[in-house]
Amino acid sequence: MTAGSVAILAGAGELPLLLADRLASAGRPLRILAIRGFSARATRARADAVVALLDIQRAFACLDRWKPGIVTLAGGLTRPSAAALAGAFSLVRNRDDIGRLIARGDDNLMRGVVELIEERGYPVAGVRELAPELLADQVVYGRRQPDAKDEAAISWGVRVLDAMSPFDIGQAVVVSGERVLAIEGPEGTDRTLARARAERERKLFRRARSGGVLVKAPKRGQDLRVDLPAIGPRTVANAAAAGLDGIAVAAGLTLVLNRRETVEAADRHGLFVVGIDPSRFTARDADAHG
Amino acid sequence: MTAGSVAILAGAGELPLLLADRLASAGRPLRILAIRGFSARATRARADAVVALLDIQRAFACLDRWKPGIVTLAGGLTRPSAAALAGAFSLVRNRDDIGRLIARGDDNLMRGVVELIEERGYPVAGVRELAPELLADQVVYGRRQPDAKDEAAISWGVRVLDAMSPFDIGQAVVVSGERVLAIEGPEGTDRTLARARAERERKLFRRARSGGVLVKAPKRGQDLRVDLPAIGPRTVANAAAAGLDGIAVAAGLTLVLNRRETVEAADRHGLFVVGIDPSRFTARDADAHG
Repeated sequence: MTAGSVAILAGAGELPLLLADRLASAGRPLRILAIRGFSARATRARADAVVALLDIQRAFACLDRWKPGIVTLAGGLTRPSAAALAGAFSLVRNRDDIGRLIARGDDNLMRGVVELIEERGYPVAGVRELAPELLADQVVYGRRQPDAKDEAAISWGVRVLDAMSPFDIGQAVVVSGERVLAIEGPEGTDRTLARARAERERKLFRRARSGGVLVKAPKRGQDLRVDLPAIGPRTVANAAAAGLDGIAVAAGLTLVLNRRETVEAADRHGLFVVGIDPSRFTARDADAHG
Repeated sequence: MTAGSVAILAGAGELPLLLADRLASAGRPLRILAIRGFSARATRARADAVVALLDIQRAFACLDRWKPGIVTLAGGLTRPSAAALAGAFSLVRNRDDIGRLIARGDDNLMRGVVELIEERGYPVAGVRELAPELLADQVVYGRRQPDAKDEAAISWGVRVLDAMSPFDIGQAVVVSGERVLAIEGPEGTDRTLARARAERERKLFRRARSGGVLVKAPKRGQDLRVDLPAIGPRTVANAAAAGLDGIAVAAGLTLVLNRRETVEAADRHGLFVVGIDPSRFTARDADAHG
């Protein structure tokens, strides 16, 4: 492969194929290495090779054969299936490498993988460099515009995320006025929205059951090459189910998956979706990689 | 009734009867006014009267008949049953009062009730004044002592709660080392622990599945007369199920319900339960009432 060629290590979700489509339409040579138990069926169907989680020898054998100019990781590895687990632990060939990964804890699994790949001599790049058009712009998507009340809620959410960021938590928060309905922990945005929804369904008075915004941004120091916050049509549907008015994300630092469907969902549910100036968040970009 | 007599407005849980027992053994005259749909069956069985939620006229009629020296609210009103809701909304006699309560939103329902009672001329006191022995002491309960690692996690949890407090959220946090597993929103501690447990069960590596502490304290500005953080045997069991090492609460600001059973549960599960110096939290007591 050429210097501009890309090997995609493909984890969960739609991002791997969205990225592959962008690269292909830009004319860049690419190979897809799907990770079994994480990558979606559609990803595996288009993959050039499929390897087990932690089968680092086979993954490197593929890379060494392909000789890509750049390696990128796309899609999460944090929700392993039972099959992936069984596969991973049955691989005892790479005890040292696996031991090093395990020592980091699985939240940093992706970061550990990045280091191993870099040590092998392959530059690692993120979606931000390879396909920045997949990231949110600083615009309002769809028909609904956030009003002054929404802006105030967004600002409050930004403050909450900034306060949380030193503790390596808080990729997202749900706020209604100055009330915090849910702070995202390691469980992800969909579960956080489900919690906000459940909380509201328990409410006594109807007016406590609606309004508010989801505010989403990377954590300070988050490695943006391997872990970008993302929203998509499902995020919009879940936000609507939680009675929210809209979604605000840090522009340039958040993926908008399936942009057209996301905007259609926003219009259908009557929500706003807005990319906000990332400098409103304290030092998100400055000390983040990639 | 005499100046030292107490009327307990009894909401959910065990606190109303625990408080009644303490007051009775101190020789103080008392009456229990149980709130239908919230108060436990055992509470209603011992109550002098039972009123519907928001049936303020009847509640005041009871108080005016009893003429207590002090009124106290014990047990939450934030998880109404369907029956309580139906009852509340069918009461159209007190439109103005109910309108005022609704305007506050139901999270402040208790605070609204306190104001109405005070305007009626009855002093409102909290459990902290009436039965301080129900609050955590600054001691280690049970056999297990927190070690240096536990102390570090507790300090981290205190920092997280302090950072959250300006946003009127975060009565509790679950931390493991410097990793935040879950921040309590409006859903309560039991659900927060269940979330930490579920998160851990999804973990890839066994060592990520255990360890950590629950740290619990009132929010800054929380009205401690109507809403004290509490732990009990169930909290200990849920913390054990989440793989935690123990529980730390702000001494003097947190209820320990059923102290003996709580300590027994801690010893049975091998957890520590410790009351920590409340001054480790920033300004929790200074601007809180009661």
